[in-house]
Amino acid sequence: MDSIGVAALKSSRVLARASTSLKNDALLNIASALDGNRRDLLAANNADMNNARKNNLEAALLERLELNDERIDAMIEGVRQVAAMPDLIGDITDLELRPSGIKLGKMRVPLGVIGIIYESRPNVTIDAACLCLKSGNATILRGGSEAILSNQAIANCISEGLARCGLPETAVQIIKITDRSVVGELITMTDYVDVIIPRGGKGLIERLINDAKVPLIKHLDGNCHVYIDDYADHAKAVSIAINAKTHRYGVCNAMESLLIAESVASSLLPSLASAFVTAGVELRGCGKAQRIVTSMNQAIEQDWSEEFLAPILSVKVVSGIDEAIDHINHYSSKHTESIVTEKEENGRRFITEVDSSSVMINASTRFADGFEYGLGAEIGISTDKIHARGPVGLTGLTTQKWVVFGDGQVRE
Amino acid sequence: MDSIGVAALKSSRVLARASTSLKNDALLNIASALDGNRRDLLAANNADMNNARKNNLEAALLERLELNDERIDAMIEGVRQVAAMPDLIGDITDLELRPSGIKLGKMRVPLGVIGIIYESRPNVTIDAACLCLKSGNATILRGGSEAILSNQAIANCISEGLARCGLPETAVQIIKITDRSVVGELITMTDYVDVIIPRGGKGLIERLINDAKVPLIKHLDGNCHVYIDDYADHAKAVSIAINAKTHRYGVCNAMESLLIAESVASSLLPSLASAFVTAGVELRGCGKAQRIVTSMNQAIEQDWSEEFLAPILSVKVVSGIDEAIDHINHYSSKHTESIVTEKEENGRRFITEVDSSSVMINASTRFADGFEYGLGAEIGISTDKIHARGPVGLTGLTTQKWVVFGDGQVRE
Repeated sequence: MDSIGVAALKSSRVLARASTSLKNDALLNIASALDGNRRDLLAANNADMNNARKNNLEAALLERLELNDERIDAMIEGVRQVAAMPDLIGDITDLELRPSGIKLGKMRVPLGVIGIIYESRPNVTIDAACLCLKSGNATILRGGSEAILSNQAIANCISEGLARCGLPETAVQIIKITDRSVVGELITMTDYVDVIIPRGGKGLIERLINDAKVPLIKHLDGNCHVYIDDYADHAKAVSIAINAKTHRYGVCNAMESLLIAESVASSLLPSLASAFVTAGVELRGCGKAQRIVTSMNQAIEQDWSEEFLAPILSVKVVSGIDEAIDHINHYSSKHTESIVTEKEENGRRFITEVDSSSVMINASTRFADGFEYGLGAEIGISTDKIHARGPVGLTGLTTQKWVVFGDGQVRE
Repeated sequence: MDSIGVAALKSSRVLARASTSLKNDALLNIASALDGNRRDLLAANNADMNNARKNNLEAALLERLELNDERIDAMIEGVRQVAAMPDLIGDITDLELRPSGIKLGKMRVPLGVIGIIYESRPNVTIDAACLCLKSGNATILRGGSEAILSNQAIANCISEGLARCGLPETAVQIIKITDRSVVGELITMTDYVDVIIPRGGKGLIERLINDAKVPLIKHLDGNCHVYIDDYADHAKAVSIAINAKTHRYGVCNAMESLLIAESVASSLLPSLASAFVTAGVELRGCGKAQRIVTSMNQAIEQDWSEEFLAPILSVKVVSGIDEAIDHINHYSSKHTESIVTEKEENGRRFITEVDSSSVMINASTRFADGFEYGLGAEIGISTDKIHARGPVGLTGLTTQKWVVFGDGQVRE
């Protein structure tokens, strides 16, 4: 692992000074290599799939693991899109002449070496590697053992693309050892690795939070709320709540908990509840909600903090915006929350006082997404407050350093 | 400690929504309270000084610990300056209408709860508390045991100032328990504390790096370099090198290592060396440097990574800019480095390829400082790459969240 770290650090210096056109050439070469090696990619993936079936991997994971021509097309298209994105590296902003005579600015630079730890989907290999490459970072990838052959086949295409334009093949390294102790080493190599971005289930993330010494850009879960205020437009409330919950269930920006102001609960909850039931959503309500919709199940304490990722919704009647904000700040995972209100002051209070990475007025939580936010591709979502917060695109893979231009200035 | 954390988190919600004028009133009240309680401050400090003398605290630390009327004046002036600074909180930038119809922006918000761990100087208590207050953060302060009475007297003034304008006194809490295990608790209270900013010696910082679960904004040391390039203007080279080393010795932005290109070493080193010797600086050189200035001591490996904080300088003759950049990236603490050159390409390469928080062309490293950079007061300097890098002012105590303004938009 140390030799992987040393090689990554060394490559990161080369990438940090690589020109935009060189990085884009490498990306386009990688796209061509994927296209030219379809047969190898499909064969490797087929072997992974056979092993996975032998190991009785569940259907949802098998579905994620599978590559086919259409998915390879999507991978290639994704790489080409990253090549077409603007390069932020080297931008100098906030230039200012200081009274001392020095000219001060901030230069956008890569983070350095980024470790990606992820589970079954092989497309993460190519997405993550290409975003890191575009932003001038070296990458160390550690995918799931069930995708090891697919990931290696993809890695070969990446190496081919890098080599063709003279960039070091160690700019993107895939760890081939499947032993789990390797992860423990990767997340503590502070001498070589600048940031770890995990992509995976809660168990993985929790383990990394406990053991990592390298900073993580991560989100643990997405317990997102919609609060229907006393001053909500009822039609907007219904369509936002239904969309936020039922558009997709297994995503981190889906609503998991609905809060509704007491003054509108009795008029709104029955129709909302029947729309949810029609969609097949199980409702778990507080006492007050149950009294309005008697068919609702009773919510237990744990339901308020649960990310269901399923057609289940907790429902709470609150006295108004104060209780809504307090409830969210207590139970939320700080991912995304939305208020439905026509009262400007309540909207302003909600976005100011709710401490989450995305706060919304009159919009579905499902918009919290790198593509919807215009970041281009997204490498993850951060529910932490430092460095990157919310959807993380290319900018989140960079940092800024201070640059000073002088003409012999010394400090008096 | 848990009750301190809970109180801080609760206060942070109040501060996050406090208006600029309310925060400024509190700061001005604190300034008045310091002025009105001079007698108590001096008496408490006198007791600390007596204890410190009994415990044979070294002279430099005694000097830092001491308060007098002049230092109290400086504290008061500092608080008033923070009150006069612009308030960043609530600023919404990067507003953009997305194709979906949502309006997207970023809102500047406080980090939440900030823990400050520091050693003897009582003025850190007031500086840190006021910067955190201005930026809407709650603070938990843990100062050195030798300053405990002074810090409590200052804390009383802060409480008085907060209470007078109706802000919770727990917005700024000073830990009164001197037991060191308290630090261990503070740096792992991830449920309550968002960031820890340590101010102190290398021993303290190393311990925190090892044990902290809460993210740190910190610098470990400042091993700063000046590189005199083949294309240096000789007069600038001499004045920058002398200033960077001799302006002050005990500061983190002082030069600790001088690199000089071989082609100019024989003409420049003798006069530079005699200027350093006149200033009382001990030189420790590589073999090549010693052959040019025979009176120089021999540098050992450790000298290249050492932050001397003293009139000692390591001197290395390098073949040119490539070796200079490699040496710096290997040995530097990533604080501040400067190149002296008239060749634009070398300047550009240096600032692009040297991986430090401040990189300079033709200027003294001593400029790497919050006041010189126009940040107003500085709460610390970060040599990390994520969140805040270099001098950390008010902006470093804040973060941004995404705000979405909709009119009923849902995801298609």
